[in-house]
Amino acid sequence: MRINRLAVAAVLSLVTATAALAATLPRAAEFRRWTHVKSMVITDKSHGLYGFHNIYADPAALKALKAAEAYPEGAQFAVSFYEVTTDGPMLGQGKKLMDAFMRKDLNAKATGGWAFGASGPDGKPLAIDVAKACFECHANGAKATGLVFSKYLE
Amino acid sequence: MRINRLAVAAVLSLVTATAALAATLPRAAEFRRWTHVKSMVITDKSHGLYGFHNIYADPAALKALKAAEAYPEGAQFAVSFYEVTTDGPMLGQGKKLMDAFMRKDLNAKATGGWAFGASGPDGKPLAIDVAKACFECHANGAKATGLVFSKYLE
Repeated sequence: MRINRLAVAAVLSLVTATAALAATLPRAAEFRRWTHVKSMVITDKSHGLYGFHNIYADPAALKALKAAEAYPEGAQFAVSFYEVTTDGPMLGQGKKLMDAFMRKDLNAKATGGWAFGASGPDGKPLAIDVAKACFECHANGAKATGLVFSKYLE
Repeated sequence: MRINRLAVAAVLSLVTATAALAATLPRAAEFRRWTHVKSMVITDKSHGLYGFHNIYADPAALKALKAAEAYPEGAQFAVSFYEVTTDGPMLGQGKKLMDAFMRKDLNAKATGGWAFGASGPDGKPLAIDVAKACFECHANGAKATGLVFSKYLE
């Protein structure tokens, strides 16, 4: 019985872990070919979103963003974060810090209908709590625009 | 004779103006769909290149840039310049200042085999001396990389 209980506990633990990871996205391999939406910089290293940010949209997300329409299932955004370099009068992109992703997913009910995820400079998924690290801020700050912060700048 | 001389002078002046403008490029209509190469920011308003810069490459230019190969005829780059905004800890893109372009052109001998041009926020060409405003700096600072300053950042 003891072994069985342990086995059941292990399986339950695995199921729980899988469920918790269900809404996290792997790296979207082609995101650097998507359309650049805009960029921004947070120079303060103590800020939670420190870095040089470049934001990209796949074709479905770009179309909805530009038309201010609802995002269709599967629409994707990516944000690349780099260290901020200073070279004379220029602020530039240094080493990659991470890539973050959001993809419209009706099953991601706990995170507002978007799945979130992030990967490190090596492309491997980061073990983050996407509800706290991504969703909460998007839900608070971008509720009126379908949880999307960025505007497309022509 | 006086009228004729004036007419000749006017025609010559027109020819000269046309020749001087021959190497300037009109706005590349689709450049915002090209691949984003990188971005950088010059916050100093007194700097000649003040602004939030986003750099784009068309498919031919991107291929050569990534492979460090010679640029094929017609390969194109664009740089969008925006005012730099400050919002709390964030530097962002404000109003469009101009778009600048360079396209590989074997006939542009006076400007290193690249034609240059720039357009204002309304899309109309800016009357600039591309030799002084573009070519001289690219020739001085990026001779080893085919006059291209930017590196592609994955």
